[in-house]
Amino acid sequence: MLTYFLLFLAASAAAAATGIIFKPGAWYEGLTRPGFTPPNWVFPVAWSYLYVSVAYAAARVAGYDGAQMALALFAVQIALNTLWTPVFFGAHRLGFGMLVLSLLWVAVAAMMVAFFRVDLIAGLLVIPYIVWLSLAGALNWRVWRDNRTT
Amino acid sequence: MLTYFLLFLAASAAAAATGIIFKPGAWYEGLTRPGFTPPNWVFPVAWSYLYVSVAYAAARVAGYDGAQMALALFAVQIALNTLWTPVFFGAHRLGFGMLVLSLLWVAVAAMMVAFFRVDLIAGLLVIPYIVWLSLAGALNWRVWRDNRTT
Repeated sequence: MLTYFLLFLAASAAAAATGIIFKPGAWYEGLTRPGFTPPNWVFPVAWSYLYVSVAYAAARVAGYDGAQMALALFAVQIALNTLWTPVFFGAHRLGFGMLVLSLLWVAVAAMMVAFFRVDLIAGLLVIPYIVWLSLAGALNWRVWRDNRTT
Repeated sequence: MLTYFLLFLAASAAAAATGIIFKPGAWYEGLTRPGFTPPNWVFPVAWSYLYVSVAYAAARVAGYDGAQMALALFAVQIALNTLWTPVFFGAHRLGFGMLVLSLLWVAVAAMMVAFFRVDLIAGLLVIPYIVWLSLAGALNWRVWRDNRTT
């Protein structure tokens, strides 16, 4: 399981690297943001926890025959996850970011169901991810809506 | 197999979307590029073929028990693939792009071996991808080396 964990962690590290390359800077600070926006330090902490725990969950799942659908959905969500940060923080495309985040939410919801079918603990570990994406989606939506003129 | 094909195609579409968001523009045209640089139109054609054929290969592989390692490696390579374009064309980080491309090459080589172990045709379908990445790596290397001062 360690090999699988390291592989899924590597995929997650590729997604995480986008947050190092495309940081929230003056552009982000200048946006109108909703009152429920978490302070900046929360984001790397939350993402670090989520990347590690979901990589562990996927590694648990990979130990079972019949895990193919769960792993295919892991691939879809990690690609969409890697895409979101450059779209939002790199290209400042708020509407396209909302589309990517919506597709990511659907992919993670489907992955959660697939994980639950294979391994209970793996499914449970995805719950914080879908909760966090729901918050991120609400945030992306409000930032998009409230900054149309920028 | 159609469901798997569509899922892997969706993951590949996320990677492909980076090429739509971060296009080679005046910055790229102004770089010193080696003589073996393909003309611009070759890139979307090559990538379209590779994304579709590798998604099909992964869908073939997903039909077998014991495909977990192959699919874990697919996830790693699609995340790294999605990362490369924003790093290179978005952030203009040529050295970091070289690192990402090197890791991508290793991930795809490992995926090719894993695909061959499961399905001969799937393995064969990855060969053009590794050939193309070798060219892309040589190109990234030369562009990095020859544009240190920009």
